[in-house]
Amino acid sequence: MTKLESLQQWIQEQQLDLVYISDPGSVAYFTNFISDPHERILGLFVFADAAPFLFAPELEVNSAKKAGWNGDIYGYLDHEQPFALIADHIKARTSHFKNWGLEKDSLSVQHYDAVRQEFPNAEFPGNVSRFVEHLKLFKTPEEIKIMEEAGEEADLAFSIGFNAIQEGRTEEEVVAEIEYGLMKQGIMKMSFDTIVQAGANAANPHGGPEKNPLKPGELILFDLGTDHLGYMSDASRTVAFGQLNEKQREIYDVCLEAQLTAQDAVKPGLTAAELDKIARDIIDKAGYGQYFIHRLGHGIGTSTHEFPSIMAGNDLVLQPGMCFSIEPGIYIPGFAGVRIEDCVHVTENGSEAFTHTSKELNHIPIH
Amino acid sequence: MTKLESLQQWIQEQQLDLVYISDPGSVAYFTNFISDPHERILGLFVFADAAPFLFAPELEVNSAKKAGWNGDIYGYLDHEQPFALIADHIKARTSHFKNWGLEKDSLSVQHYDAVRQEFPNAEFPGNVSRFVEHLKLFKTPEEIKIMEEAGEEADLAFSIGFNAIQEGRTEEEVVAEIEYGLMKQGIMKMSFDTIVQAGANAANPHGGPEKNPLKPGELILFDLGTDHLGYMSDASRTVAFGQLNEKQREIYDVCLEAQLTAQDAVKPGLTAAELDKIARDIIDKAGYGQYFIHRLGHGIGTSTHEFPSIMAGNDLVLQPGMCFSIEPGIYIPGFAGVRIEDCVHVTENGSEAFTHTSKELNHIPIH
Repeated sequence: MTKLESLQQWIQEQQLDLVYISDPGSVAYFTNFISDPHERILGLFVFADAAPFLFAPELEVNSAKKAGWNGDIYGYLDHEQPFALIADHIKARTSHFKNWGLEKDSLSVQHYDAVRQEFPNAEFPGNVSRFVEHLKLFKTPEEIKIMEEAGEEADLAFSIGFNAIQEGRTEEEVVAEIEYGLMKQGIMKMSFDTIVQAGANAANPHGGPEKNPLKPGELILFDLGTDHLGYMSDASRTVAFGQLNEKQREIYDVCLEAQLTAQDAVKPGLTAAELDKIARDIIDKAGYGQYFIHRLGHGIGTSTHEFPSIMAGNDLVLQPGMCFSIEPGIYIPGFAGVRIEDCVHVTENGSEAFTHTSKELNHIPIH
Repeated sequence: MTKLESLQQWIQEQQLDLVYISDPGSVAYFTNFISDPHERILGLFVFADAAPFLFAPELEVNSAKKAGWNGDIYGYLDHEQPFALIADHIKARTSHFKNWGLEKDSLSVQHYDAVRQEFPNAEFPGNVSRFVEHLKLFKTPEEIKIMEEAGEEADLAFSIGFNAIQEGRTEEEVVAEIEYGLMKQGIMKMSFDTIVQAGANAANPHGGPEKNPLKPGELILFDLGTDHLGYMSDASRTVAFGQLNEKQREIYDVCLEAQLTAQDAVKPGLTAAELDKIARDIIDKAGYGQYFIHRLGHGIGTSTHEFPSIMAGNDLVLQPGMCFSIEPGIYIPGFAGVRIEDCVHVTENGSEAFTHTSKELNHIPIH
């Protein structure tokens, strides 16, 4: 069943007449057409009893066809009233347009009001955002393959980054080397701002790279990923620059044990909360629980902020095709930060990681 | 009058009781606190008869204070119900909460429904998006200064990019050199994906850099900008790589005349449509009107997509403090593309550009 067929089935189950897919990311998800229309209107309209259509700015119509959309597509010009045209197209297609599903998490009040003005008797019982989130939980083999390719790019980024470590070079300069090295190989887009944090700066998990020069004897934390064909990679490694002291080594080992144990435990049937607890218990028992101040992981796919959230209280049962990060961290203010992260997809028996850079402590020599 | 005072005055003029600023960009605009809360709630509540407050995820509270917000701020934890807490804070502050202004262009239906559930008798007559857009039209001297600094970064990017032109190097590789050169100087964030397009590829103004090797005898188009303290630069230059033919030279000269004439014509009292027409008439008269397929310019500030739009039909009268691009282009499919762009701010008597890279045709020698 295609994603669009799943949506059509849901429309019927929910006894809706039609659904308006308004989020550009969701349009891309269902049609393969990736576009940011800014203030213009891009929408996919899917019906219980009629064929779907795409509505787009006129200048995007050809790109949408090229991207593989072979259903109907209607363009509009800047001086036209998009919601009036949309209403005409809907009414030409079906006489059933009372019960709507909307992407309520992202549709703006302004566009909602425009729909209500064209369809004064419409009702809006369905929040399609919940369904799209649910559908996105389960990646297809084609999506997994693209995410594996994105993971290879992240592994390449680590190798460039580790090679760029030099005494006196700043965190920002290492970021520059990573992104430059990737761009020279045609990898043009990161999935988020690349993080390189050394020493005490790494103890701030909400911070970023600074003009901080690298010094031997520090742990250096890398968190990075790329956007590959609209799918994201995301991974973290923490490496030793020169000689570490005992406590640095200890927090690394504890974090690594938590990461490896959790990743090894992933299998269908485990809940998200149970998985979080497996990693957290190890860090708690070692006495560092108060320094692990975020959830174990987040979902990943067309974004780095999606479901499932791997955290206490989430009783979601893991199932094959789900993709998420496993990223325990220990952050000791004023001292050091460690985070080790792979994203995985759940398989029939366990999981497979998208990134394969070694997690054994990597000692970067002082040149 | 501060921006917040302008908003308070508007609330009174509109006879609203309160306004909910929900867009993170708008929150930053009024409070200097730049934050992307993702799925969490960040909101600024401003009242007709009470002091404003900021509502934020607990882990952002300190950052907001550090950014300079010295009004009340209330945090919430992930397991709490943010809109129930917001309702409590509002009711503790005032007994007037019937007439709301909302940022309807960006507020999601889901959050709108959450507000309506807490305030079943509320009405929502005001669309604050229109007012914020209007207020953002007029940059303060402090904002102009930051935008001048952003413009200097764009000028630096051009000089790095022009030096990176080499036969056989791809467009993507030139982008890599530009962003690397900037990052090495601590300039970490572009305002949009850097564009380098050579030869016929530049004829697609919606395209981007490709794996296309540069060849002597081509026009090469650069369009780039940086994000400096939350304010954007944006500029375009087109340069000659080696020897041009007569027609390439002609379209460059026509585009340059249109750009210089329009930029020179900017002054308070002219309308946006009149300014567009000044540039368009020059290109039309030279016989290339059909190849100038976009508006003359767009507003710029905290984003590269804001008002004023410099285009036919926009009778907005230009006034001091307005900031926008002047970017005529000529795109001949299969042949070449030229675009020349500065962003300017309107002054009492004319305008000042934010970028100063020469617009005379720059001949890059073949090494």
